[in-house]
Amino acid sequence: MALTLGDLAERTGAQVQGDAAVTIDGVCTLQDGRPGRISFLANPHYRKYLADTHAGAVILDAAHAAECPVPALISANPYVTYARVATLLDATAPAAPGVHPSAVVAADCRIDPAASIGPLCVIEAGVEIAPGVAIGPGCVIGHDVRIGADTRLVANVTLCHGVQLGARCLIHPGAVIGSDGFGLANDAGRWLKVPQLGSVRIGDDVEIGANTSIDRGALEDTVIGDGVKLDNQIQVAHNVQIGEHTAVAGCVGISGSAKIGAHCMLAGGVGVVGHLEIADGTVVTGMSMVTKSITERGVYSSGLAAMPSDQWNKIVARLKRLKRLDDMARRLQTLERKLERKLDGKD
Amino acid sequence: MALTLGDLAERTGAQVQGDAAVTIDGVCTLQDGRPGRISFLANPHYRKYLADTHAGAVILDAAHAAECPVPALISANPYVTYARVATLLDATAPAAPGVHPSAVVAADCRIDPAASIGPLCVIEAGVEIAPGVAIGPGCVIGHDVRIGADTRLVANVTLCHGVQLGARCLIHPGAVIGSDGFGLANDAGRWLKVPQLGSVRIGDDVEIGANTSIDRGALEDTVIGDGVKLDNQIQVAHNVQIGEHTAVAGCVGISGSAKIGAHCMLAGGVGVVGHLEIADGTVVTGMSMVTKSITERGVYSSGLAAMPSDQWNKIVARLKRLKRLDDMARRLQTLERKLERKLDGKD
Amino acid sequence: MALTLGDLAERTGAQVQGDAAVTIDGVCTLQDGRPGRISFLANPHYRKYLADTHAGAVILDAAHAAECPVPALISANPYVTYARVATLLDATAPAAPGVHPSAVVAADCRIDPAASIGPLCVIEAGVEIAPGVAIGPGCVIGHDVRIGADTRLVANVTLCHGVQLGARCLIHPGAVIGSDGFGLANDAGRWLKVPQLGSVRIGDDVEIGANTSIDRGALEDTVIGDGVKLDNQIQVAHNVQIGEHTAVAGCVGISGSAKIGAHCMLAGGVGVVGHLEIADGTVVTGMSMVTKSITERGVYSSGLAAMPSDQWNKIVARLKRLKRLDDMARRLQTLERKLERKLDGKD
Repeated sequence: MALTLGDLAERTGAQVQGDAAVTIDGVCTLQDGRPGRISFLANPHYRKYLADTHAGAVILDAAHAAECPVPALISANPYVTYARVATLLDATAPAAPGVHPSAVVAADCRIDPAASIGPLCVIEAGVEIAPGVAIGPGCVIGHDVRIGADTRLVANVTLCHGVQLGARCLIHPGAVIGSDGFGLANDAGRWLKVPQLGSVRIGDDVEIGANTSIDRGALEDTVIGDGVKLDNQIQVAHNVQIGEHTAVAGCVGISGSAKIGAHCMLAGGVGVVGHLEIADGTVVTGMSMVTKSITERGVYSSGLAAMPSDQWNKIVARLKRLKRLDDMARRLQTLERKLERKLDGKD
Repeated sequence: MALTLGDLAERTGAQVQGDAAVTIDGVCTLQDGRPGRISFLANPHYRKYLADTHAGAVILDAAHAAECPVPALISANPYVTYARVATLLDATAPAAPGVHPSAVVAADCRIDPAASIGPLCVIEAGVEIAPGVAIGPGCVIGHDVRIGADTRLVANVTLCHGVQLGARCLIHPGAVIGSDGFGLANDAGRWLKVPQLGSVRIGDDVEIGANTSIDRGALEDTVIGDGVKLDNQIQVAHNVQIGEHTAVAGCVGISGSAKIGAHCMLAGGVGVVGHLEIADGTVVTGMSMVTKSITERGVYSSGLAAMPSDQWNKIVARLKRLKRLDDMARRLQTLERKLERKLDGKD
Repeated sequence: MALTLGDLAERTGAQVQGDAAVTIDGVCTLQDGRPGRISFLANPHYRKYLADTHAGAVILDAAHAAECPVPALISANPYVTYARVATLLDATAPAAPGVHPSAVVAADCRIDPAASIGPLCVIEAGVEIAPGVAIGPGCVIGHDVRIGADTRLVANVTLCHGVQLGARCLIHPGAVIGSDGFGLANDAGRWLKVPQLGSVRIGDDVEIGANTSIDRGALEDTVIGDGVKLDNQIQVAHNVQIGEHTAVAGCVGISGSAKIGAHCMLAGGVGVVGHLEIADGTVVTGMSMVTKSITERGVYSSGLAAMPSDQWNKIVARLKRLKRLDDMARRLQTLERKLERKLDGKD
């Protein structure tokens, strides 16, 4: 789709600098700039490419506007404006409405005529699918699932029975929503399965990454709030609650009944123990393990940074000998006393 | 399914307190109790909801029986009894026997008439499927797989060729069993694939979570014992052996040829190095890394708990300066000697 | 397939010791050796089984040749020779060429007649598939994907639109290639999706494990070099570059725009932070977190080994009290000065 810089400014609330009539039909990087495409400067690391860019236009903030050799969109938050512009320019055709003849659809489903059901999907009984929904190839939708308007399942997604998805969600391939929680009762050494009778409720504008899994609740539901963004390879256990607009990076594991607040950020590889609460706005850095409730928003960590192994091994060896610190503290105190007595002339 | 409290007591070995004729047709929580449903008290955290519960009945132990305002099932292990009761009440209809016409099934498979093959499954040559098996939509079953009675594959499960599954297993969506192990020989800097010629043998009553993967053996088989429970997002490498009734939580990675004992518990995010053994009954806590054999049962750890990042960063900075401990120990000893000499009158 | 030991020697560059006419039609372990099968000795741990092996022949190095009780193939690198021999003996029939009638294939695809498209696959518009390619059951190939000669997708693999795969790749079930990167712009607390407009380019001879995910680039492509081997459950974020012949073990997470060199090895559970570079030939040990660029090849670590929890808890408690080290250092210095003055006769 092609728009003028003026159009883009009007639709995104940015200001034009230079020729508002220049036509833009795509995006590019600063260093690989091309006429007719628009780039952006958000990370100062890339400022060095600005002066020589061949982009048709650049999105940047007022502080860098003077350095821009081509027409520009001036915005207080260039990355947000870029996200809006790239979305406007996105030429991806929406999926054609209708049900592909190879899909297997139960008779009593309520599928809006303006929804698209791709090839080789299975839609079980009682499913409700709103207008604008696009179910890509190979998806399996269990009975009594409800999917809100304009939500898209890319391909090979599995929604187990009874799961509810809000509007405008985007679910990537391999994601599994509504699998049984890991509920086990130990009966004299053997594990007895505890039926998982809750479901999963997912709000609006939620994105769920490739091969991420979200278990259904044991009795009550697992709940993912509006605007939550989950990356790939994440495990969300039964009865977890994730508050609105929280973002969770790849490879995170969240144990059962943990309650994550709104507007949190969990970095890659974080683990969260079950049955705890994390305050709104909390940030947890990479590969940390949250073992108890976080009641105050802030940044939390327990990850360790790699270093040359010989250095690391020495640290680990010293860690194991930290006990001697107790002994040294005692000896130090003894020395202090003895010397004090000596200096006081008592010895 | 509706049963009287008396029926439930008889079938689970519990004792009735109060009206044995009350009818129960579902389960509920204590705090969201409803007539006709049964709840349970296992975690003391929920005791506060007992006095005011509106549940039709409650499962609890004798010590709390006097506090129960409604009819009760008395059991020494209320959670186990709850698991049994919830299973009895489970109204899920079994999958209808027969092969869905959209499934692609090789001519020479032996599929019991009392098994159910869902829509859009692929069943390759030589597969044997026992009575009561339910293969959900979109599953792929490679050639020469054998599946024991009453095992269920929920949906979009992949079993590679030759894999053997026992009876009463439950395999969740996205699970992959029998993919090639990561066998590579380094030929002057390039990796040569080592054919993975073993298979995977899985016992009875095994549960395997969503998006979990279990690789086939290199020469001999990967073996998962009876009653093993694997959560979601787990990686089991080639030739691993997992002993009976061991439970493994989400996001665990087990490297090649590791031999995990029976009745072990591995918490979320644990990593196990290859070619080692873990004793029966071992517990490993969250995000720990097992780097050598554990010969004695017990609880093992190396995970670190998150704290405010500024505190954590100071600890890390001090860790890197632990070397000075050696120096301090030397200086302390020197001081002790000097002072001793002084006190002895030698200086 | 059956070959004589002499044939195998000729085809792999090894030397025969003993009867070159013995026929070999499979492989076995030393301890479970069988006539007609060939084993190998690479790991000294298994040397104890050599003297009593019933294998038809053994691959080993010259140093152990004298101990071998049966015919042998002598090689400087027995494991590499074993990989070659096992590949030669592999009797797996190639997939039959042609498109299975249950597959849904867009009209304008260019699928070589010598390629095999399995049952219930979806091949979208504009896809190009080279000779010898085998697409297993249930795979979804998005529009405009290109797949090089002799590449195999085992089953239930998802390739999103525009992805390019080289020749002789092997992709295991559940792998997802080309899902959207986790690109988000924070607009006053809400996450705005940044369209992911790049793709994924994968070289020749790449292996990708079960349930591994590789995201497409934001603007430029995610790039996986020739000969790269990725194990299961790996997350590769957008715009990552992985150099040739690098091997990545299971459960590794690589964040956006990280650039991993050639011939690196990342062990299981490693995390790599985004926007950094790792030098060619770098090794990172298990569960370490790489937080900044590694400019010099070597071995890097930050993983911790599990120990009995009571020991570990004491170490953690001491870690939290490391602050006292600063105090002790000060007191030690004070003592040294005081004692020096005393010894100097100044006090």
